Amino acid sequence: MVARGEKNRMLVAGIAGATGYTGIELVQLLHRHPQVKIGWITSASSAGKRLCDVHAVPWEYTLIALDDAYARASEVDVVFLCLPHGQSIEAARRFAEADIHVIDLSADFRLGRAEAYQRWYGLEHTAPELLPHFVYGLCEVNREQLRGARLIAVPGCYPTTVNLGLYPLATAGWLGERVIIDSKSGISGAGRTAKLPYMFVESNENMTPYNIGYRHRHIAEMELVLNAASPNGACHFTFSPHLLPVNRGILSTMYVRAPQGVTEEQVRARYMEQYAGEPFIHLLPAGQQATLRHTVHTNRCAISITTENPSDPACRDFIIVATEDNLIKGASGQAVQCMNISFGLDESAGLL
Amino acid sequence: MVARGEKNRMLVAGIAGATGYTGIELVQLLHRHPQVKIGWITSASSAGKRLCDVHAVPWEYTLIALDDAYARASEVDVVFLCLPHGQSIEAARRFAEADIHVIDLSADFRLGRAEAYQRWYGLEHTAPELLPHFVYGLCEVNREQLRGARLIAVPGCYPTTVNLGLYPLATAGWLGERVIIDSKSGISGAGRTAKLPYMFVESNENMTPYNIGYRHRHIAEMELVLNAASPNGACHFTFSPHLLPVNRGILSTMYVRAPQGVTEEQVRARYMEQYAGEPFIHLLPAGQQATLRHTVHTNRCAISITTENPSDPACRDFIIVATEDNLIKGASGQAVQCMNISFGLDESAGLL
Amino acid sequence: MVARGEKNRMLVAGIAGATGYTGIELVQLLHRHPQVKIGWITSASSAGKRLCDVHAVPWEYTLIALDDAYARASEVDVVFLCLPHGQSIEAARRFAEADIHVIDLSADFRLGRAEAYQRWYGLEHTAPELLPHFVYGLCEVNREQLRGARLIAVPGCYPTTVNLGLYPLATAGWLGERVIIDSKSGISGAGRTAKLPYMFVESNENMTPYNIGYRHRHIAEMELVLNAASPNGACHFTFSPHLLPVNRGILSTMYVRAPQGVTEEQVRARYMEQYAGEPFIHLLPAGQQATLRHTVHTNRCAISITTENPSDPACRDFIIVATEDNLIKGASGQAVQCMNISFGLDESAGLL
Amino acid sequence: MVARGEKNRMLVAGIAGATGYTGIELVQLLHRHPQVKIGWITSASSAGKRLCDVHAVPWEYTLIALDDAYARASEVDVVFLCLPHGQSIEAARRFAEADIHVIDLSADFRLGRAEAYQRWYGLEHTAPELLPHFVYGLCEVNREQLRGARLIAVPGCYPTTVNLGLYPLATAGWLGERVIIDSKSGISGAGRTAKLPYMFVESNENMTPYNIGYRHRHIAEMELVLNAASPNGACHFTFSPHLLPVNRGILSTMYVRAPQGVTEEQVRARYMEQYAGEPFIHLLPAGQQATLRHTVHTNRCAISITTENPSDPACRDFIIVATEDNLIKGASGQAVQCMNISFGLDESAGLL
Repeated sequence: MVARGEKNRMLVAGIAGATGYTGIELVQLLHRHPQVKIGWITSASSAGKRLCDVHAVPWEYTLIALDDAYARASEVDVVFLCLPHGQSIEAARRFAEADIHVIDLSADFRLGRAEAYQRWYGLEHTAPELLPHFVYGLCEVNREQLRGARLIAVPGCYPTTVNLGLYPLATAGWLGERVIIDSKSGISGAGRTAKLPYMFVESNENMTPYNIGYRHRHIAEMELVLNAASPNGACHFTFSPHLLPVNRGILSTMYVRAPQGVTEEQVRARYMEQYAGEPFIHLLPAGQQATLRHTVHTNRCAISITTENPSDPACRDFIIVATEDNLIKGASGQAVQCMNISFGLDESAGLL
Repeated sequence: MVARGEKNRMLVAGIAGATGYTGIELVQLLHRHPQVKIGWITSASSAGKRLCDVHAVPWEYTLIALDDAYARASEVDVVFLCLPHGQSIEAARRFAEADIHVIDLSADFRLGRAEAYQRWYGLEHTAPELLPHFVYGLCEVNREQLRGARLIAVPGCYPTTVNLGLYPLATAGWLGERVIIDSKSGISGAGRTAKLPYMFVESNENMTPYNIGYRHRHIAEMELVLNAASPNGACHFTFSPHLLPVNRGILSTMYVRAPQGVTEEQVRARYMEQYAGEPFIHLLPAGQQATLRHTVHTNRCAISITTENPSDPACRDFIIVATEDNLIKGASGQAVQCMNISFGLDESAGLL
Repeated sequence: MVARGEKNRMLVAGIAGATGYTGIELVQLLHRHPQVKIGWITSASSAGKRLCDVHAVPWEYTLIALDDAYARASEVDVVFLCLPHGQSIEAARRFAEADIHVIDLSADFRLGRAEAYQRWYGLEHTAPELLPHFVYGLCEVNREQLRGARLIAVPGCYPTTVNLGLYPLATAGWLGERVIIDSKSGISGAGRTAKLPYMFVESNENMTPYNIGYRHRHIAEMELVLNAASPNGACHFTFSPHLLPVNRGILSTMYVRAPQGVTEEQVRARYMEQYAGEPFIHLLPAGQQATLRHTVHTNRCAISITTENPSDPACRDFIIVATEDNLIKGASGQAVQCMNISFGLDESAGLL
Repeated sequence: MVARGEKNRMLVAGIAGATGYTGIELVQLLHRHPQVKIGWITSASSAGKRLCDVHAVPWEYTLIALDDAYARASEVDVVFLCLPHGQSIEAARRFAEADIHVIDLSADFRLGRAEAYQRWYGLEHTAPELLPHFVYGLCEVNREQLRGARLIAVPGCYPTTVNLGLYPLATAGWLGERVIIDSKSGISGAGRTAKLPYMFVESNENMTPYNIGYRHRHIAEMELVLNAASPNGACHFTFSPHLLPVNRGILSTMYVRAPQGVTEEQVRARYMEQYAGEPFIHLLPAGQQATLRHTVHTNRCAISITTENPSDPACRDFIIVATEDNLIKGASGQAVQCMNISFGLDESAGLL
């Protein structure tokens, strides 16, 4: 299905918020997409300037204000919202009213229920009536619901590694009672605002744990996907993020205790079955570990599976490593993948 | 006590193996030490060259062969062995016979028993008679045994973060049944030999888990220190190291489940008591996390304590983070600290 | 023109030498190219292994030996040679005899005359009869000769920045007598072999000048392009390369003294005229400097022009900065651009 | 001479401005200094906080306001001013009135004449009467004037590499008419304030030329030192700084055309004579290049000399490379060296 019109017509995309890292990544991905052209791009801080004066790119788009984008909503088929948490709600409502497909990269429509949003983000949700209409855009899990979807919430960067990395275990009922997740993220995950901890000299040659403890927001998305998929009820997630001195990439090391009798061979077979034919899942063979290098500058998620004690055949402790490029599979690439599915395009278009 | 001679005399140190990273770090530390001068320096690969032609330092020492060092053993009071695992045994024996203090930075004399060495390192120990005479040089734990010690085995880099990070819990009997240790190490930990995985382009902007699984050699030192200190018997250590794209530094994130009823306040008090007055332990206050920056280019170990769920007063899951400079506190700095203690010098001399 | 066959047929490409950085970059670029599929890939060191076991990519191509590639030459339309200097000569001859288009990324066919090759590379050229048939693949300069060309020598990485950065001055006769070129290159320029100077710990947090002095090989290509284009005769090039601690990218800062009376406005106009419509030249506006960020992970060359003394209208000293991704515009991307031109495809195909 | 008192007394130092990179570096250097203790430390932004809450250090000094420091001036023998340009003038006057030695790390007293300050910094100098009393603290050049000096202006980071790198040529009259200086500086040179260009993701894997052109402020110090030392009159300096993605270190590549007949041997002999016995000058032998690694985390300046065309004995074009740690020899280390000289201490005390 290609919305609004004839087959093979180029889709026109709008981008709201192009001065952050996910916004500019999206511009670059869409430039490479053979069936999409960019209609307009907004920026709150740089409206009136050209994109090439704000980022190190050659494109001369004049950035417009969000209000102007509302007025020009009919010029586009789909809008990507790369706005800060809390600011997407109003924009999503305005564009939805204009009958535009909305693909939101913020957290505003991920959690399904307004109470959950309030609980985890501390903000009242001002468009709760839209929440049931949003599809959570974890493509490998929700592909069918994404076909034809007009409102899509793109998953968070950390949860994408965790959810893709553990989903085959969850569906098999093998997650166990508690999973410890030790995640490391490149600095672009902190966004493109000048704050001292993300300065070069502060981050480089350093590693910093932060927000350690139970109540990290991203746990909500893990519970939403994994506990919902599990036949065994709730798993408890311990999640510890660390700032890693690289530009891009997340590596999550996950410690799982499966039920007695579950073997590495069974686990590996479960992953192969779950992800057979998936274009963006790179399952490493036994003995190889997923690294950032497998995924940065790609839309792929790499996953490796290791038993904690190879010499013990009864060992049921597994270490799952999942990696991604936080700006691509963890944000803008997954957003394009969602668009491709929802409009009936080749799922990989523009993402190779 | 200053060995062999009058008070205030300069100690003379020999260094065996100065072309690796720990060797050159040791040269730099001893240059700064007010009571030590360097007698001779050996190098297997560069004997006959000057140190300044092998490293980016100004010092013109001519490197000598190890055999020449044996002949010149009497010129020094203490020798530091910065040799590869397996090669220290013979050197330690030769220098011990010459009545020189030996401070070995390899693993050859760390494990106490020849069977343990065989099991973990796969090598037969050819000087088992010396093993009982070596003191394991974890200064904050074995300070008393180090006074006057003539044979010292300097702990490994990873285990130093883990052992210092968990020792107060072990002595209290609070380690629980299993500790998960997710460690990240700078690339200098791999040594100064040209291998593909440690090339700049391979390591930079990357993170790589490696040797994941139960039987990592460094677990032997954790069991040796922590299980021996614990009144509760053996704790099981899961240890997952990762290559971190920085030159120096190890950060270990450790997940501990203490016995029921143990509170964060109790844990913090335990650490403060254990490490009161320690010049090289930097215990972070509540709410701050230990980072690499706290310790690189210093002989310090920084430790932070966080409860996994601050809103649950009954929470007994703790996340301990410990960091160090792997070349200093994890190797050459700790070696100098051992020397200071064993010769009765100010423990901090040359290490500020 | 599409060689050998009907319009819209997919071209089939062979790659000789895929275990280096240019080889794997080429594989990635061709995977993205809509009109090319990969026939076979060779590797001297890893024949028989799969590509995904040698690089962090998901593709399972089994690498073959070069001899097998000769036997299977007829399966491909074009072969890219990513072989070390000196080894391309024989391969080029064999593939040329098999009537395959040859795009050579080594230096073996760049210099036009066997004497020049001998002089600069110290090797006798064993296929001098082929040299006149090779087109030097600097696309923005030799586009017309590249159309239909069957033998193409892809320019070196450093000279591409210098030649594109100075070509408009050369054609205008404004190069002056001497140009000083201070170049900085990412470590991937040193290739994918394990040597001590390119280890992470040696390169990171460091900068190293190397091969400073007049007779660097890359000067040959500068003379070949720029002095040939200049109406004023020979300019003397001083070229100083430095190792820069980044994975990719070259930045060349070039100091030019133009003839009296030449103004910044004239210079800028000259560049705009020269490069009007060029898809891969990003000419920065006055007041902005070309950076690595403008070009890494793209096929672009960014160029900025600055007068040394803006307050002096008679100033004729200019600082030209040119940047590129050494693996893309400086190697594999330019090779694909050459292929696109030679086969009559869209010049930008696969390169956006 | 040790000011104010008996021999072997510890000097007491105050530090004004400890939240920047030079300030904290100074704290660390003075902690290591055997004859200095720290009296008080000021901070405009963090007065009342502890140093260990602002930087990743263990020291618990409570930071005080500058006004409080004025009131407590008599508690210290010497004050180091690590304040922004323009703010040192008033502080220097106040502390000078209190009869304290003043070592100013800003540019406020470097240029000698108020007109020069106005011209290069665009600020009126409000204490011109003090200017003649300040000694420019380039230790290797002005050592004699520094003995006993009570007011010292520490040189800028870039000019220190240039002035030390070219001084032997200047005194010999061999600088020529024009020197081109291509400098690369680590990001700490930009200071510790949160600005977008110095964010990790903006600087990392990037290189950026900036402020290219004639009128860079640092040229004033080059003219002041080098043209004053030269018997041949004014040399014209072209200075192009670049942001280098490392924490610390400056590397300046300098292109010099000496008078006809000057040979590499003469040049090298000139440098060896000039710098004989200098503890902090590391002159590289022929064939080796100065790198950042030679100097980071030290107070040294490394210098290498290369002729542009080794095969031409008449070549008089030289490439001089000079490196330093911008926070140590380029700022706080040189400040301590100045203090040592002025108070008659061992010049290397605390700096090894």
